[in-house]
Amino acid sequence: MASVMRFISLAGRRSWLYYNKVEQLTDESILRTNKEQAFWKLGKLNHLAIAVPDLEKATAFYRDVLGASVSEQLPLPEHGVTTVFIDLGNTKIELLHPLGEQSPIEGFLAKKPEGGMHHICIEVDDIKAAMKDLVSNKIRTLSKEPRIGAHNKPVMFLHPKDCGGVLVELEEA
Amino acid sequence: MASVMRFISLAGRRSWLYYNKVEQLTDESILRTNKEQAFWKLGKLNHLAIAVPDLEKATAFYRDVLGASVSEQLPLPEHGVTTVFIDLGNTKIELLHPLGEQSPIEGFLAKKPEGGMHHICIEVDDIKAAMKDLVSNKIRTLSKEPRIGAHNKPVMFLHPKDCGGVLVELEEA
Repeated sequence: MASVMRFISLAGRRSWLYYNKVEQLTDESILRTNKEQAFWKLGKLNHLAIAVPDLEKATAFYRDVLGASVSEQLPLPEHGVTTVFIDLGNTKIELLHPLGEQSPIEGFLAKKPEGGMHHICIEVDDIKAAMKDLVSNKIRTLSKEPRIGAHNKPVMFLHPKDCGGVLVELEEA
Repeated sequence: MASVMRFISLAGRRSWLYYNKVEQLTDESILRTNKEQAFWKLGKLNHLAIAVPDLEKATAFYRDVLGASVSEQLPLPEHGVTTVFIDLGNTKIELLHPLGEQSPIEGFLAKKPEGGMHHICIEVDDIKAAMKDLVSNKIRTLSKEPRIGAHNKPVMFLHPKDCGGVLVELEEA
């Protein structure tokens, strides 16, 4: 049994759930729940976001000291931030700096004036299916519906207290 | 000039430095500095580490709720942590939980009892060249020499205050 459980955990639970659903489940409500879970899949780490008090200085660190490829500054007034993306090849770091009044990262920088890691963004293939499934697993979302994120794709944020202290963004990609 | 600078920032500064070194620089000390910089390269994000107060619960969140592939628990007594790796395809999340007395993440969890993002690990091709270069750029390292990390590869940590509030680990890979 231990080796079976190890296989399940290593292979991810989707295929196991699907197998289980077809072979064993008869109760319709369980069938529906598992079907929903089986029909959305977690993808790769899209980015890791860092809130910074000095955008020029942080950009210079990654570009000039570490030698990474960096984007231009991208102001996103509707999100209250200016962003710079650092390309690491397999994924990106998103530098976030407050823009305008009531920026969503003002509070974070008030607590951590030197800056720090703000959130992680993981891709999903179907954000509505993911949202329904997560809510049924008692994971709180920060909005009732997905909204359009910085990449013009639907995103939603999960409550850090339900995700081991980490603010997790899911993006449909 | 703006478009040239944009090209430089997007293409990364290594090739530009190399070009500049060959074409323009004559001062030997500058030549040496640039040569060192040109001879180490930043790689991909190896992992993102999250310190968690409850390793079972955090593992269950990624495995059972998000459906990610997770490793077995790996105790690393010499590092004072037990780790679990979450495979996201392009990169990994490393869950860290204190092991034994004087674990290096006890202090972090004392400040953030619910857990949170602890460090990021970026690969480099030559850690000694990187270290020499970073020290010349006034970036403080947390040890005088690289040490052997959790993957049996040389690693070093950079001071968060010199890296925009983020603890950055470099790993030779």
